[in-house]
Amino acid sequence: MTKAPDPSQILSLSTMLSTQRRIAALTRPTPLIYSPALSDAVGCEIWLKLETMQVTGSFKLRGASNKMLQLSDEEKERGVIAVSSGNHGRAVAYIAQKLGIRATICVCDLVPENKRKAVLDYGADLRVVGKTQDDAQAFAEEQIVEQGLTWIAPYDDLAVIAGQATVAVEALWEQPDVDAIVAPLSGGGLLSGIALASKTISPKIDVIGASMEIEPGMVRSLEAGRPVTVEEPPSLADSIGGSIGLNNKYTFPIVRDFMDRAILVPEDSLGPAMKLLFDAEGLVMEGGSAAALAAVLSTDFAAGNHRKAIVVISGRNISRDRFFNAINK
Amino acid sequence: MTKAPDPSQILSLSTMLSTQRRIAALTRPTPLIYSPALSDAVGCEIWLKLETMQVTGSFKLRGASNKMLQLSDEEKERGVIAVSSGNHGRAVAYIAQKLGIRATICVCDLVPENKRKAVLDYGADLRVVGKTQDDAQAFAEEQIVEQGLTWIAPYDDLAVIAGQATVAVEALWEQPDVDAIVAPLSGGGLLSGIALASKTISPKIDVIGASMEIEPGMVRSLEAGRPVTVEEPPSLADSIGGSIGLNNKYTFPIVRDFMDRAILVPEDSLGPAMKLLFDAEGLVMEGGSAAALAAVLSTDFAAGNHRKAIVVISGRNISRDRFFNAINK
Repeated sequence: MTKAPDPSQILSLSTMLSTQRRIAALTRPTPLIYSPALSDAVGCEIWLKLETMQVTGSFKLRGASNKMLQLSDEEKERGVIAVSSGNHGRAVAYIAQKLGIRATICVCDLVPENKRKAVLDYGADLRVVGKTQDDAQAFAEEQIVEQGLTWIAPYDDLAVIAGQATVAVEALWEQPDVDAIVAPLSGGGLLSGIALASKTISPKIDVIGASMEIEPGMVRSLEAGRPVTVEEPPSLADSIGGSIGLNNKYTFPIVRDFMDRAILVPEDSLGPAMKLLFDAEGLVMEGGSAAALAAVLSTDFAAGNHRKAIVVISGRNISRDRFFNAINK
Repeated sequence: MTKAPDPSQILSLSTMLSTQRRIAALTRPTPLIYSPALSDAVGCEIWLKLETMQVTGSFKLRGASNKMLQLSDEEKERGVIAVSSGNHGRAVAYIAQKLGIRATICVCDLVPENKRKAVLDYGADLRVVGKTQDDAQAFAEEQIVEQGLTWIAPYDDLAVIAGQATVAVEALWEQPDVDAIVAPLSGGGLLSGIALASKTISPKIDVIGASMEIEPGMVRSLEAGRPVTVEEPPSLADSIGGSIGLNNKYTFPIVRDFMDRAILVPEDSLGPAMKLLFDAEGLVMEGGSAAALAAVLSTDFAAGNHRKAIVVISGRNISRDRFFNAINK
C-alpha cells in the first residue's frame, strides 16, 4: 500500500497542540514512566504511557472532550448521544455532567455491570440495547433523527482523533527518541491519533497496533481493503472488540496509511501481561489495554529489534473480580 | 504543648525548593488526582497525592535522594548503609545503583520477600539480621564503625526530611487551598517534611498523621513526652511499624511541634480502604499507606469538618497475594 506523504494534511501539529490546550480543562496530562522490569522482560527500553491515570480511567476522555468542547450552544442545548462498550460512554457522561449537557449512552448486553454503573453515576441516561454494539448503534441513529441529539463518535471523527493524538504528543514531548509506539487497535481512533502525531513528530517511529487474534475488526478490514463486519465473541479485552463501521470515513484510511503494522495476540496472553504489570509496577489495567503489553512481549515485536518503545496503557476500567481472575490463573 | 513559632527556622521554603530541584535527577513529580468516589465516601473533597507512582514505588526515594546526592566523593567511595522495613532500602539501593555507590541494606526477618528481592535486584548487599528493626539497626551501627560506611537515615535526618517535604510542596503548588493534609505517621520523616512545608506555605492547613492503633511508635512517644520503644506485631501496615529511635533528634520534636493531630486506625480498617481505592480509582497501595485513607474514612476525621483534603498515598510495594487477601476479605 502506498503511504500517504504528509500526515499534516489530515491533522497538523498545530491542531494537535491547540487540542491539547483545549482539552486541558477536562483532562489531565498522564505520567510516562520507565519500567525497568518490563524493559528486562522485553529486551528493549519500555516506557509506559499511563492513560489508566486519566480522569474516568481511560484515554477516551481526550477525544470526547475535544469533540464536546467544540459543540455549538444549540447542540449543547439539545444534548448528545453515544454508543460505547464502556470507556467512551463513561467519558461522554463525565464531560456532559461537567458541561451541563444531557447525555444518552447506548450500550449492548456485553458491557459489564461496573461500566454501566459508572455511566449512571455521572447522571447520564443509560440505554441497554441488543447483543452487539451494532444493535446499540442502530438504536442511537434513530434517536439522533427523532430527538435531534448530536452524535459523539467513539473513534471515526477528526476531532476525536485529534484528542487521542494528544496521548502521543505528550509522550513524545517527554521521550522523543523512541523507535516504536504501541497501542491497542480497535475502532482505530487512538491508533489514528497516535500514528498522525508520531509520523508528524518523528516519521521513523514504528507505529504498532495491538489487536486480538480473534475477530480483529480493523485488521480484517485492512486485509479486505475495505471495512468489513466481524463477530464480537466474549473476551477479557471487551473494550477493543467489534467492527469499525461499514461507513468508516477516517480511521480506516488513516490506520491503513500510517500504521506500520499490527500485532495480533491470543486471549491467553492477556492475563499474564496484566499480572506482569501488577507485579512490576503495582498497576492495574483492563483486558483491552493488556493487548498492547502482550504484543510487546510477543516474538513478533522482538523481531522488530526495537531499542526504546512507548506502550500506551490505555485504561483501567475492569471490575475487581475480573481482574483477580485474570491475573490469578 | 507550645507550638514552635516558625517552621522555617528548621527548614526554609527555599531549602525545600532547592531540594526539589536537586532530587529531580532521580525522582519524578507524582500526580495529584481528585477522586469523586472517595470525596463522596468521606463527605469532603479528596485529592490523592500518588507516591505510589514514584520511582521505586514510594515517597522514600525523595528523602534518600536528597541525602545521597549531597555525599562527598570520599563518602561515595566508601559506600552507604541503611536499615529498612523495605521501601527506604529499596530507594537507597536504587539510588546507589544510579550513582555507582556500594550500598548495604540491613533488614529484619519481618520484611517480606518481595521487598527483599527488590533490594537485591538493584545490586545492593542485603543483610537479614534479627527479629526487629532495632536488631538490624544495632548491626548496621557496628558496620558503620568497622567499615566506615555512611549511614543513610530512614527518617531522622534533616536532608531526608527536606526530601519528603517535597511531597507537600508539589501537592500544595497544585492545590493550595486545602484545609487538611493526611499522611501515614511512622518514624515521622514524611510527616515532619509535610508539616514543615504545609505550615510554611499555609499555616492553617491541618496536618494529620495516621498510625496503627497497636504500638504506634511516634504517638506513644508524644504521649510519654520522649521517644519510647514499642513492639512490632505483624501487621498489614508493616511499613509503618516500629519505634522512632531512643536518640531521635529531629522527627520527634518536629512532629510534636507541627503536627496538629494523629488519627489511630484499627488493623481491620486497612483492607476496606485498599478495596475502596482499588474500586474507585483502579489503584494499588500497600497496607501502611492504607492507614492514611482509613484515617480519612474515620469518624475522627469527619469531626474535623474539613472541606478539601490531600491524602498522601505513600507507596505501592505489596505482593500480589497479600494485596488480594487484604481486599477480598
